[in-house]
Amino acid sequence: MLASQGPRAPVTRATGSPINEEANPEAGQPVPAVYEGLDLPLSKDPSRPYVVINMVVSVDGVSSVDDRASGIGGEPDRRAMRALRSGVDAVMVGAGTVRAEKLNLGLDDPGARQPLAVIVAGNGPVPIREHLVRNSQYLQKVLVFRPEGPHAKNHRKQAHDSVRILPVPANGDGRVDLRFCLELLRREHGVDRLLVEGGPFLNGALITNHLADELFLTLAPKLMHAHPTQISEPASRGPQDLQLLSFHQQNGEIFLRYAI
Amino acid sequence: MLASQGPRAPVTRATGSPINEEANPEAGQPVPAVYEGLDLPLSKDPSRPYVVINMVVSVDGVSSVDDRASGIGGEPDRRAMRALRSGVDAVMVGAGTVRAEKLNLGLDDPGARQPLAVIVAGNGPVPIREHLVRNSQYLQKVLVFRPEGPHAKNHRKQAHDSVRILPVPANGDGRVDLRFCLELLRREHGVDRLLVEGGPFLNGALITNHLADELFLTLAPKLMHAHPTQISEPASRGPQDLQLLSFHQQNGEIFLRYAI
Repeated sequence: MLASQGPRAPVTRATGSPINEEANPEAGQPVPAVYEGLDLPLSKDPSRPYVVINMVVSVDGVSSVDDRASGIGGEPDRRAMRALRSGVDAVMVGAGTVRAEKLNLGLDDPGARQPLAVIVAGNGPVPIREHLVRNSQYLQKVLVFRPEGPHAKNHRKQAHDSVRILPVPANGDGRVDLRFCLELLRREHGVDRLLVEGGPFLNGALITNHLADELFLTLAPKLMHAHPTQISEPASRGPQDLQLLSFHQQNGEIFLRYAI
Repeated sequence: MLASQGPRAPVTRATGSPINEEANPEAGQPVPAVYEGLDLPLSKDPSRPYVVINMVVSVDGVSSVDDRASGIGGEPDRRAMRALRSGVDAVMVGAGTVRAEKLNLGLDDPGARQPLAVIVAGNGPVPIREHLVRNSQYLQKVLVFRPEGPHAKNHRKQAHDSVRILPVPANGDGRVDLRFCLELLRREHGVDRLLVEGGPFLNGALITNHLADELFLTLAPKLMHAHPTQISEPASRGPQDLQLLSFHQQNGEIFLRYAI
């Protein structure tokens, strides 16, 4: 069984309620971050970390606008994200997410042990200096996985201060071998628990390759007015059932935890 | 304020729990359908019905496969859908939904008053005889809205038994004027409450035209392995905040009710 979080009451199979903020005796009090103190397990496969994906989507199914997820989730989502980060050894994103906007993959507390930042890249630019905001007291270490090949030597030259570029084997499609990356993180960097924060392509590749253990999904109470996803041809695989492990609500945002 | 449903306990702003079916004292007992006995209000605009949209999406944001939503929701979703239908005067879908598969827009109980079935069509085929499954004891009445124009006379010939074809004004894009349809339903067919069941294009058009009051969203614990929705250009409108009115969980499906 997976660890659950804290002394909350179990719910029955049919549960829920209208939202009634008036009836909240603690209204106005600070509420704990969803996933505060969450204790993630280790992977059953000792060669790789336990891998959890965290993503936020709008009610109409949009997870990013111009590769940016930052406009979708609210403050409870940001606090839940920080709580998840505090329970892992490394935070992974795809290079497109780094290119899209300035982002911080660490914790707010400057005295906290910062998770390792891991970036899965192709041969395109990864503007770490420009876009990765890092705590100055304990500088967050950064690993960039690049596909091995003729470009690798150039990439190595880009390394500086606490950033390491690691050329790794590529698959037939020229993208880095994700299982190799995970095994290297476990073996050489002591990463027992890994949080993946997108983008959607990286999330999907990990799930498809059976390398993701859990999905944390925040459903933001927003319409982004995108055209909904439709599959015009049968998908390459059939539907896959998930197991709902927990759900929470804060300020209209719904926090869902699934076993994959 | 919108009517809420039944004597369930109010929840606080930070709420939720791990799912623990073992601890359910009623495990194995039949649980009531989500939205059983829901009492929808009337529209503040007396010229049209109160309009609620019901849709099911997978965790990866897929609402239909080949226009079919039938493979995504489970039994609790089907029961919630029937409960919503029992609280409205009419159920509306787009013609693409009728073309996609056999479907039933009514209630299971053959003795129940069946809601009016309303189909929003263009000039394409609407295979009512072939695809619309109707209770034989109290035959469900069907209205088909078609855009006025040179095709309208042909369409009228297709009418039979309890099916009425209604040519209505079209907008600049050749599609039926949805506000006109809603006002006609209210005025001539006594429709005070209307449930819309997709597809995504009809849902989106109602929301964009400020004709939808609530969104009922079921989040099914499934991955459909579609490519997630991404907006490559800024959407035509900015994000729109929704208000979460209630949430429930049954068998891993999450039931969300939002005011638009």
